[in-house]
Formats: sequence, C-alpha cells, structure tokens
Amino acid sequence: MAMALMEARRDDAAWDLDDPVAMRRVIRAGDFTEHTGGVGLGYVHANVAILPKDYADEFARFCQRNPKPCPLLAMSEPGDPRLPELAADLDIRTDVPSYRVFRDGRYVEDVPDIRHLWRDDMVAFALGCSLSFEGALLDAGLPLRHIDNGETVPVYRSAIDCKPAGRFGGKMVVSMRPFKPADAIRAIQITSRFPNVHGAPVHIGKPELIGIDVNQPWQCGRVDVREDELPLFWACGVTPQVAVEQARPPLAITHTPACMLVTDLRNATLASF
Amino acid sequence: MAMALMEARRDDAAWDLDDPVAMRRVIRAGDFTEHTGGVGLGYVHANVAILPKDYADEFARFCQRNPKPCPLLAMSEPGDPRLPELAADLDIRTDVPSYRVFRDGRYVEDVPDIRHLWRDDMVAFALGCSLSFEGALLDAGLPLRHIDNGETVPVYRSAIDCKPAGRFGGKMVVSMRPFKPADAIRAIQITSRFPNVHGAPVHIGKPELIGIDVNQPWQCGRVDVREDELPLFWACGVTPQVAVEQARPPLAITHTPACMLVTDLRNATLASF
Repeated sequence: MAMALMEARRDDAAWDLDDPVAMRRVIRAGDFTEHTGGVGLGYVHANVAILPKDYADEFARFCQRNPKPCPLLAMSEPGDPRLPELAADLDIRTDVPSYRVFRDGRYVEDVPDIRHLWRDDMVAFALGCSLSFEGALLDAGLPLRHIDNGETVPVYRSAIDCKPAGRFGGKMVVSMRPFKPADAIRAIQITSRFPNVHGAPVHIGKPELIGIDVNQPWQCGRVDVREDELPLFWACGVTPQVAVEQARPPLAITHTPACMLVTDLRNATLASF
Repeated sequence: MAMALMEARRDDAAWDLDDPVAMRRVIRAGDFTEHTGGVGLGYVHANVAILPKDYADEFARFCQRNPKPCPLLAMSEPGDPRLPELAADLDIRTDVPSYRVFRDGRYVEDVPDIRHLWRDDMVAFALGCSLSFEGALLDAGLPLRHIDNGETVPVYRSAIDCKPAGRFGGKMVVSMRPFKPADAIRAIQITSRFPNVHGAPVHIGKPELIGIDVNQPWQCGRVDVREDELPLFWACGVTPQVAVEQARPPLAITHTPACMLVTDLRNATLASF
C-alpha cells in the first residue's frame, strides 16, 4: 500500500490505528475486516496458519526445518486459542480481520471469524512476516520500490526446494526487492538482524539460478529492476500456504492475504543483535 | 599463498610459526625477512604506515574519514616505536620482516629494519588487513578462489573517491573475491562482524558501476568470475599507499607487500558481535 494511501487511512480512522490492543478489540467485535497496512505501525504483524493436531505436528517440523520461509513466532496448545507470547488478550478465533478457509488443500471462502470452525484439536501457528524487516529497511533510509509505486511486493515460486516434513513440502516462495549494490549490502546487514521475520535474503542477483524471471511474478505487484540494481530475494510467508496445498489437510485456516494478526510485540524487540 | 605451500612452509620452519611473540623475536633479530603467510595463524596481521608528525596528523584524519580502506588498529606517540595495544614487546622499527621506503611519494628501496631511519617525530600506524576476515570466511567453509589457485587476491583501483584529508586523498583500492549468490550473502554477514579489518564489502556485482573490469586487475593475481557467481569488492589496505603517493611526504615507510606486522591480537577478538 502506498504511503500516501496509508496516511489518508490514518486521517480517516475511527479507531486508534497505532494501538494494537485497541485494534484487536475492534477486529474482535467484527468492525474491521480489512488489510492491516498502516495498523499498529512498529508492531509485529504475523502470518497465521491453523491446522488439526494430526497435521500440526508435521507442520511444526516443517517450520523447524525451513526457518527462513516459516519463522515460527508462536504455536498454541491444541484446542487453546490463545498465543500469550504475542499478546495477553489474544484470541486467534476472532482477532484476525479476515480468515481464509481451505478444505483438502483448496480455497473455500474468506470469513471474518472462525469460532464456528474451531475444534479442540486445532493448533494455531503465528509466523514472522516481511513487514517487520521492511520497517527496519525504511528506518535505515533504504528505498522500497513496491511501496513507492503503491504496489504489493512481487512474489515468485522459486526452484528452491523446501525440506519436506511428513506431508508438507514444496518449492520456496520468495519476494523480490531491487537495490543498488551498496544498498543491497546494507539491506543484507539489516535483515540479518531479524531471523524471526525471514532474516537475510536467500538469493541476490542472477534470478535465473533459482528459476525466476523477475518480469513474471507469480502473485502480487510487478516491480522493475533497473540497470544499476540487483534483485534481492527473501523467503516469503506465502511458502506455508503452498505447503498446506500440497499436504491437503481436511481443514486449514490462514489469514486472508494482507489481513494480518497484529501483535503487541514491537518489531525492534525481534532484533537479534 | 596456496594452502599446500603454507603447509610445506610450516613443516620446514626452524621456528614456532604459530607463536607471534617468538616470531617477532626472530624477525627482530633479522632472521626472517619473508612474507608472513602462514605465520601466527589466527592472529591479526597489520598493514603498516610510518610518517613524520607533520603528515601523520593529516593521515590520522584520512583514516578516520575512510574507515573501510583504512581501519586504524593502533597509532603510536610521535617518536615512540611501541604499539602496546597490539603487543607488549612490539618495536615498530624492527618487528616487520621487510619495510618499503618512499621518498617524496616514490618507492626507493626495501630494507629489513628502519632503526637508521627512525626519528623523534615519526608516527607509526597499524591498519587492519583482509587476512583477518579471510580466516573467518574460511572457518565458515566459504571457498576463496585466489587461495585455491595459489594466487594473491586481485586488487583494482576503483572509481570510488576517498574522502580527502589535507594532502591525503585519491581513489579507493579494492580487492575482489567471487562467490555464488548464497555464499555472497554469507560473506557479507561474516565480514560485517569485522569493521576493524575492512568490514563488509563496498560493492557487489556490476563492476562497471565502480569503474572496474574484473579481468584487468591493477595489482596481484587474476581470478575468474564464473557465470553463476557475483564479484564482491572489499576496501583494500593498498589504499593508504595510494594516498601516501599523492601526499608525497619527504619520508614514508610501509611494510613490503605481504610482509606484515604480526600482532598478539587474535582475529576473533575483533568480532563486533
């Protein structure tokens, strides 16, 4: 979302967009079912995956083996909808603005809450998201072209295999951001500090080596790479969705893209050094 | 120097090459006037520059303004040949295997000690050297092509201007090491930990953007960059030599290339995090 749009949104807001506790309360009441761009700025937004216990154990192993695309911030007890590491009041059944329901690995519908779908064998996962490191890049004065262009970041299916775990597997999905060489080095340094939100890039330059044509994104916005720039590729939180499609659990629930779980953790607390 | 050559040297040595104190004693006695490859492995080897005080003050400012090519490890008091931060017994007039003497910015001769040239206005500088970060790269399992090929690292005059200080200035000299993309990211992370020995690269990929043809090094070995690799460019300790040539002090003394000052500091102590 373009900065100008975010600013306009902030001016029009009926709620305190900056306060994650207040925003979760509004979301919980069903009064906010939109994307979370500009909400709780500076706080960690998380990708969400909810699975029956039978699949959840394998998915936890999948995350452990693939920490760059699937950095696990928190994991619930089976049947317990709380994630107290992320926020004391958090209820994963109601606190995401919009949920995406998959049956047998296929998209079914988007719904504003999942109380009717929750069962006592459901396990909720919260995974780090690139919004956190993008904040650190912007703070360091590095330009992010997709934001300047008012686009979402372009996302590609790479040729990089994830390490399989049980029924979960598949190719790593990556996001791309172009930088001039000196800024590319700085971007690697900055994102290296945030291993819980995808960390350093997995690839730089030469997209063909990981099976990518930068002009053919799989999802989201298109961003040009200029003659004096290198494309940097980060592991992307869409990867677990691909793994869920492959595993085909009878029921799986994620957040609707861009409608993230807003937590009480500040992005800065994730910095590893 | 190739690893095999270093190993052979270690087997033949009449002295304990691993002990920096013992090696400085041998060097001080005039019994070792060679390059220091394989000597004091794991200990910091330093670039040396010795200047009259009138020029030394400007050179100190030059180092402060250009920390990537000129990372200052230690600086003596005028006329005092000791650098106690680097080793308790160190005497900069005798403890370098071979010195290079410049008059009016021009090379005159190499000499095994400089007691006859020392004056009470001379100031000694010890600057970090890429050997320290190369040790960290090798420890991490990253291949260094110039070492595998038995070559010295290729060095280029880049189009990057150093920040001038008084009479000192000129272009930044850089060294180049090629890596596959994932290794390049790792190399940036590893060398970022060592700001006192040139730190992170100053450039990656696209050599033409800093005025370089990788096939035309200015000094030292030639190393090919393969189709699936990116060239990484680090600021190089030859840069101060270029700055000295530009400043043309009546007398300047450096180490002879590859004949470094071996200190008691372990490389690992330089890691910033």
